[in-house]
Amino acid sequence: MKFKLLLAATLLAAPALAAQPAAAPSPGEIVAAADAKDWVAIPQEDLLVMDLAPRADGGARRVIIQLVPEPFSRPWVANIRTLAKARWWDGLAIVRAQDNYVVQWGDPDGEDKGKAKPLPELKPTAEAEYISPATALTTQAWTNLGRAPLDEVFAPIRSTTTGEQSFNIADPFASAYAFVGGFPAALGRTASPLGSKGSFAAASAWPIHCYGAVGVARGLSPDAGTGAELYTVMGHAPRHLDRNIAVVGRVIEGIEHLSTLPRGTEALGFYATPAERTPIASIRLVSELPEAEQPKLEYLSTESDTFARYAHARANREDDFFIAPAGGADVCNIPVPVRRKP
Amino acid sequence: MKFKLLLAATLLAAPALAAQPAAAPSPGEIVAAADAKDWVAIPQEDLLVMDLAPRADGGARRVIIQLVPEPFSRPWVANIRTLAKARWWDGLAIVRAQDNYVVQWGDPDGEDKGKAKPLPELKPTAEAEYISPATALTTQAWTNLGRAPLDEVFAPIRSTTTGEQSFNIADPFASAYAFVGGFPAALGRTASPLGSKGSFAAASAWPIHCYGAVGVARGLSPDAGTGAELYTVMGHAPRHLDRNIAVVGRVIEGIEHLSTLPRGTEALGFYATPAERTPIASIRLVSELPEAEQPKLEYLSTESDTFARYAHARANREDDFFIAPAGGADVCNIPVPVRRKP
Repeated sequence: MKFKLLLAATLLAAPALAAQPAAAPSPGEIVAAADAKDWVAIPQEDLLVMDLAPRADGGARRVIIQLVPEPFSRPWVANIRTLAKARWWDGLAIVRAQDNYVVQWGDPDGEDKGKAKPLPELKPTAEAEYISPATALTTQAWTNLGRAPLDEVFAPIRSTTTGEQSFNIADPFASAYAFVGGFPAALGRTASPLGSKGSFAAASAWPIHCYGAVGVARGLSPDAGTGAELYTVMGHAPRHLDRNIAVVGRVIEGIEHLSTLPRGTEALGFYATPAERTPIASIRLVSELPEAEQPKLEYLSTESDTFARYAHARANREDDFFIAPAGGADVCNIPVPVRRKP
Repeated sequence: MKFKLLLAATLLAAPALAAQPAAAPSPGEIVAAADAKDWVAIPQEDLLVMDLAPRADGGARRVIIQLVPEPFSRPWVANIRTLAKARWWDGLAIVRAQDNYVVQWGDPDGEDKGKAKPLPELKPTAEAEYISPATALTTQAWTNLGRAPLDEVFAPIRSTTTGEQSFNIADPFASAYAFVGGFPAALGRTASPLGSKGSFAAASAWPIHCYGAVGVARGLSPDAGTGAELYTVMGHAPRHLDRNIAVVGRVIEGIEHLSTLPRGTEALGFYATPAERTPIASIRLVSELPEAEQPKLEYLSTESDTFARYAHARANREDDFFIAPAGGADVCNIPVPVRRKP
């Protein structure tokens, strides 16, 4: 691993130690100074608004989710759009909150055939796509979608001046990580003797379970879930779920309305009684809301030089608080910045 | 990186695919089957009990913290014992809750010299010990404490049968990770050009900021904090704080009483008004409680074969839910099991 400074110009300009050197910009300051062109509008049909029942004190609880783009989206994101348009989640509930793990929502009676809420027609999601080691999303599948070759899309974080990697990005779960369309993603190892469950394809790729990731709950393998039961991560990244469960989005506003919910006391954090569940007032696609009510959000382009400098600063904190910059970062320590469109 | 199976005996005994193989034990099943001798009693003077004011519905809120052992403990843990014996925290408050980061407690008036609660006499904590790159905890310092040499203590997770590493333990923040006295710890790289803040010593070692870690809040570097203001991590591991802030313990029971607190709305998640703060009823060393009231806890020996098998199973999930075991784990995905003494 090589380490190069992206901020070389700043450092060369710093005066001798006896004088007061200008503080290096913090990651937040780098993002605040980004050009307008570095921000990418999130399509309105990729935004989901979940309104929970108001708090006891009457306060509103709105959560906004960005759905993952192709090629990671299929077929679950199509199902999620269908379910939102059918208003299927309205009146259902948060059913589970397990500390340092996930908050989950859907039909509390989903496993009771006599009481389960009928689903609209959904796309099949048999063991397939990137969650299967046998049919992982390969270079060919990626190229068929008209995307750049994986080895370009997944180039490691690079120096904007030298093209070299600027901090340690070692990852015990993958051969490399990078960012695709605003989402953290991993690239598979070329070989991995993983025991009785077999290995996975070289050059496969998958989205990552970081804090705030939204995934598709399911039963035992090979069930892949429909998209009707969803969860969000609100603890340390459970990367062992990568490639085992479909990641379909991430919470970009209001996650505190989920992460502060009382933890369930049954196994896996399920609530023991219906009264403990938080009702879902509604889940809507933003594109289905009246124009005047549509929030507009954008993310910092993960292909921009600004993002590369932000990632570098996350890994090499030079601001006044820090004694010893880390010189490295795991992918979930570099959250992709999001803001309301100014 | 080499990958070896610790569970080879189990796999060899499995019948052909046409038959129903016995499911591999889950990490929880491995821990549940541990011998009594694999459990280590936590000294009562290393346990801290924090009782928050009861919930609105009258429910108790007790948090139990395990203090970190030597050599990582000095001088902050001594100060924490002094503060608990002086009942210094009683009547103070939780002052900060920042989503996906930390909950912090101490004296809300601590930065106002006219109103700050007087501190008992505490040990000095100038820039020193392992949080300083210049005076990191070196091999020599470790050996002076009568401990085994660092390269033995920090041997990577090993196969119990072959001695070889059984899964990928790549770490972007350190050259290796391991477990010392029930705590996750990191071993420094031999060289690391970290920009203007300099490098750190080879063979230095430090405890890690995983979910639940308790650290010493402080002002700008080189302030190292006294131990009077503490925080716990309740989000993705903020490993960039390692070596910058002293880790002094970890929450081993009741973290949900901290992680579900409403998030503060001021900068950094501080509460805007005193009414939003949660009062601390008391913080006590368990060794100071009446014998009949003392909880007794133990952790799974991180030097035991059982722990090695547990860690292997965390990284290589073979139980029925999983399609594609990860083949790797980051240190914070291997929480050290703790239980009440049976």
